[in-house]
Amino acid sequence: MRFKFPLMAISLEVAMIVLFGLFVEYETPQNASQKNASHQNASQQGNTSSSAKKDQFFQLYPLFQDVHVMIFVGFGFLMTFLKKYGFSGVGFNLFLAALGLQWGTIMQGLLHSHGKEFHFGIYNMINADFSTATVLISFGAVLGKTSPIQMLIMTILEIAVFAGNEYLVTELFEASDTGASMTIHAFGAYFGLAVAGVLYRPGLRCEHPNDESVYHSDLFAMIGTLFLWIFWPSFNSAIADPGDHQYRAIVNTYMSLAACVITAYALSSLVERRGRLDMVHIQNATLAGGVAVGTCADMEIPLYAAMTIGSIAGIISVLGYKFFSPLLANKLMIHDTCGVHNLHGLPGVFGGLASIVAISWGMSTASMAMQAAALGSSIGSAIVGGLLTGLILKLPIWNQPPDEYCYDDSVSWKVPKFRELDNRFFQHANHNHVEHEV
Amino acid sequence: MRFKFPLMAISLEVAMIVLFGLFVEYETPQNASQKNASHQNASQQGNTSSSAKKDQFFQLYPLFQDVHVMIFVGFGFLMTFLKKYGFSGVGFNLFLAALGLQWGTIMQGLLHSHGKEFHFGIYNMINADFSTATVLISFGAVLGKTSPIQMLIMTILEIAVFAGNEYLVTELFEASDTGASMTIHAFGAYFGLAVAGVLYRPGLRCEHPNDESVYHSDLFAMIGTLFLWIFWPSFNSAIADPGDHQYRAIVNTYMSLAACVITAYALSSLVERRGRLDMVHIQNATLAGGVAVGTCADMEIPLYAAMTIGSIAGIISVLGYKFFSPLLANKLMIHDTCGVHNLHGLPGVFGGLASIVAISWGMSTASMAMQAAALGSSIGSAIVGGLLTGLILKLPIWNQPPDEYCYDDSVSWKVPKFRELDNRFFQHANHNHVEHEV
Amino acid sequence: MRFKFPLMAISLEVAMIVLFGLFVEYETPQNASQKNASHQNASQQGNTSSSAKKDQFFQLYPLFQDVHVMIFVGFGFLMTFLKKYGFSGVGFNLFLAALGLQWGTIMQGLLHSHGKEFHFGIYNMINADFSTATVLISFGAVLGKTSPIQMLIMTILEIAVFAGNEYLVTELFEASDTGASMTIHAFGAYFGLAVAGVLYRPGLRCEHPNDESVYHSDLFAMIGTLFLWIFWPSFNSAIADPGDHQYRAIVNTYMSLAACVITAYALSSLVERRGRLDMVHIQNATLAGGVAVGTCADMEIPLYAAMTIGSIAGIISVLGYKFFSPLLANKLMIHDTCGVHNLHGLPGVFGGLASIVAISWGMSTASMAMQAAALGSSIGSAIVGGLLTGLILKLPIWNQPPDEYCYDDSVSWKVPKFRELDNRFFQHANHNHVEHEV
Repeated sequence: MRFKFPLMAISLEVAMIVLFGLFVEYETPQNASQKNASHQNASQQGNTSSSAKKDQFFQLYPLFQDVHVMIFVGFGFLMTFLKKYGFSGVGFNLFLAALGLQWGTIMQGLLHSHGKEFHFGIYNMINADFSTATVLISFGAVLGKTSPIQMLIMTILEIAVFAGNEYLVTELFEASDTGASMTIHAFGAYFGLAVAGVLYRPGLRCEHPNDESVYHSDLFAMIGTLFLWIFWPSFNSAIADPGDHQYRAIVNTYMSLAACVITAYALSSLVERRGRLDMVHIQNATLAGGVAVGTCADMEIPLYAAMTIGSIAGIISVLGYKFFSPLLANKLMIHDTCGVHNLHGLPGVFGGLASIVAISWGMSTASMAMQAAALGSSIGSAIVGGLLTGLILKLPIWNQPPDEYCYDDSVSWKVPKFRELDNRFFQHANHNHVEHEV
Repeated sequence: MRFKFPLMAISLEVAMIVLFGLFVEYETPQNASQKNASHQNASQQGNTSSSAKKDQFFQLYPLFQDVHVMIFVGFGFLMTFLKKYGFSGVGFNLFLAALGLQWGTIMQGLLHSHGKEFHFGIYNMINADFSTATVLISFGAVLGKTSPIQMLIMTILEIAVFAGNEYLVTELFEASDTGASMTIHAFGAYFGLAVAGVLYRPGLRCEHPNDESVYHSDLFAMIGTLFLWIFWPSFNSAIADPGDHQYRAIVNTYMSLAACVITAYALSSLVERRGRLDMVHIQNATLAGGVAVGTCADMEIPLYAAMTIGSIAGIISVLGYKFFSPLLANKLMIHDTCGVHNLHGLPGVFGGLASIVAISWGMSTASMAMQAAALGSSIGSAIVGGLLTGLILKLPIWNQPPDEYCYDDSVSWKVPKFRELDNRFFQHANHNHVEHEV
Repeated sequence: MRFKFPLMAISLEVAMIVLFGLFVEYETPQNASQKNASHQNASQQGNTSSSAKKDQFFQLYPLFQDVHVMIFVGFGFLMTFLKKYGFSGVGFNLFLAALGLQWGTIMQGLLHSHGKEFHFGIYNMINADFSTATVLISFGAVLGKTSPIQMLIMTILEIAVFAGNEYLVTELFEASDTGASMTIHAFGAYFGLAVAGVLYRPGLRCEHPNDESVYHSDLFAMIGTLFLWIFWPSFNSAIADPGDHQYRAIVNTYMSLAACVITAYALSSLVERRGRLDMVHIQNATLAGGVAVGTCADMEIPLYAAMTIGSIAGIISVLGYKFFSPLLANKLMIHDTCGVHNLHGLPGVFGGLASIVAISWGMSTASMAMQAAALGSSIGSAIVGGLLTGLILKLPIWNQPPDEYCYDDSVSWKVPKFRELDNRFFQHANHNHVEHEV
């Protein structure tokens, strides 16, 4: 019992080292003619020489680092909003992402290389971060209700399904999904919701006393929001075709996000009592513009269309938080801790639909059908995969925390004594001030 | 009343989308021969081909992202230092910046294209962030004393005046202001002070109980300070001429900031009782070196001159906080919440004067005069624009918070219940520890 | 007494300005043929033309900024984990780094230019940050127990010794130490431990009531951890030879860090009571993979070897925190506040040893001997330099804080009144909520 988590973690790391030893190699001049595993540009990269690949590596490295900040600081701090679950939010995020990027490299690499050895380039690094993003989105749906072991298992299973769907979407359907509204955001959200649905516990039905924020935990979460918001143009453009496509992916995402902020604030004020803004909306719905514009980010939609997509996404997301999440919890028995359905699910589906419309302007019906198939496949595989994963996680051997210890770091972490509460702790500080406490 | 803010925000976003639809286009090979709106290098860019522009785009994109971090994380967290106004500090910063960058793109683009359509390149994105910086500086002067609607109106008005002055300075005076000590920092500070002066309320004259920091709010503010400090070389060099100018803008800013830190610490210890450092000085005055070196950042001043400018700026800024701000509040009836006069105003003017001296070494008297005109125009237009804006904001229809609710998030935000105060909240945590509380 | 710190700081800044005036110049076309001071690539850079240097400058600038974030945000926030020493942790970090980078530029520049004028390029900026890293590591060992003046003196002395050892290692031994496991990490750790040993005070032997974290201070520290973790590949590759070496330095560091996270979590859970994770381990040991892989980061070790190094480093580091630090404190009378021995010392030595093994695969025994000499020189000079520095710091004229005021900001900072403790402070907030407090 006690040694389950450390032993599983160490075994997995040993397995990763063996798999990297068997299948992953440096990019070197000698292997330049081989094909590189990548998200979308496999064909285009096949012809690239090794020296050009190195140039590409250093050109894309700053964008990779932007994405890296999003994964570890962005997602990590966004999940520190709960008053007693901050260590777990940012700490398990780091653990799951570090595990997921190793496993994602292997899964995606092997699929795209058809089981052969492959070389480790900048696209592999970016795609590895992308596959962890999927897991971290699902993590948001079950945040506070699962044990580290359960999350470790979910990471392994989800990335396997994710890689399969991603391969299907890019290689078979040849669909366009640069910013991954469908393959990452919608997939991650519905996978997480399916898991949350299977793991539903009536004991958590009423408002849990720990399932809320305090003042400073909301400020910590804003660190996550801002870094996600700032670097989202890099996320949506990192694996776009170089040149015009990449340029458009950046500017469309930038403008969509700016527009989304305005409507998210407006709607938050509109739906709340006395016009007050809700931090939950600000932390999340301001990012929906980045999710929704993802699939068509690199297309030749006009800038004002990107802004329109962002504006609508901000509205959808706030309405989702206000009206849809309670429905989901009460009617469908799916409790979504971070509201990933409103940030990643609805805007992701909206983004997929928007791409079908955008493609209808210039391309064949076949393209539209393939795009629709990609959306269907992403949601379908997510739900099926999530249900199966949920069933496995429901086995009573994974140390799931009891109801009263949900959303509570002290189950998994040594927690400080909180001497802040002791008035004497601050006495010396008062010596510096003439003013007396009233 | 209740719907004023959301309706104004949504209407503005619709207007932005329409304006972008009318005037803003992608950069494409077809439109490469047209002139690009930019801060300073309009002439030089006119001759650039589209493919070269794309290269430029990706070369400058990392610098743009540095500036982007400064605007959203840097300014945002710097303004979380008040104990009960952190949500507003970082939250309204995000809102105003997202609005301002859309409006700034339009205003600057139309002015530099003389009312015609223009293409959206990396210089537009950087300049859009710059125009929001101006607003965020002014925001610091009125922080905690205004409603979201008032700030929204200020954003629209200020950016219009800013764009006009920036056009005057760069196109008519052909003055040099790479790091924008004059057009952004001095302008933003004096605009904000003028607004604060008009909005002065005797009720806030005595120390307001909310107008102070707590321990952790000061640490949150340091997140802002550090990201501003780190990326300031990118801010001052982002729109400099490529090559030597840009190189010098980076290294001069880097050295000026390093020197400024040392003198700011020294002066803070010197002026405070018992030699204690004051967090207000550390959070702000350490950045004055970046402001002051801005105008001459790309000039061929020796490195030791940049360090001298930084050292003096650190001294000026701390002295401003200690002696000038109280004067401003008591004699001129201008209450400057963040002390933007000491961080942006005085160092900005000093930077403008330094540039006149620097130019006097190598160039004509005409150049010096133009530089002086730029400084005068920036301060003059800021004061006039700020006074008029203040008068509009003083109209009693913008939901300005009453005195007792100033510097208080709960006017505009749902605020958590702060259960941290409940001793029972932490009880479980103590179970993990053998030591007993004394 | 009272004016000692400000006067020393200002005098030092004046000295820096004079030294920069005498020895440091811009890189210009005119001086392109001269040799550039750099960490390792002095010979290779000698032949580079000025225009190529400018290209190099802008190619490496994003990596420099990553390192810059690590120094100021990474190290800074990592040292905010103490409940009452956060201002000092992040604030003195800024001060020491800003001073150290000026002094490091001079010391390293003069050594590599053999006392002549030198030009200020991107390698100088990166190396300046590197020399401050060394000081900040040592700062961690004495955190909370020294005055600002003592730290200022330590900065000046340590960087002088560091620059000497770095010159020895790179120019005389021609050893390989791209990521500086030996010259920065091991050196900084053992220098700091030697100082801490000399400054040992029996009064601090028992657990000091301030030497602990609170909930939110641990979250602030995670900001530091994550930015260090994310940008470590840039740290280890910034001064690597361009091309394949730099590529390998990035990917090896990336994979080593990912592997290290998994083993650090596993070991933390394994050694703690009831399998709970310890924030101290997570904040620090997850980074040991970056330290340990440093020296051989750019070598042609296979990726799985990099992962193995990272995995072992994570294990070593947690075991160090759990078992070695108490020994060090109780038997050797060395109290290491941040546990830098476990994060930088042991993994640094391990990294040096790993490089000897790695080199043994392909190169001569001579190379191995030089590598061993570099490790010996780094540790030896650190211990001797640290002991001498400690003796100077022990003089009773540097305002060292008395035992009861250790780990306490209020000695050096104005500290807010902490009204958070006043229940009435939050009363208004409760008005917004229907729910009653139980």
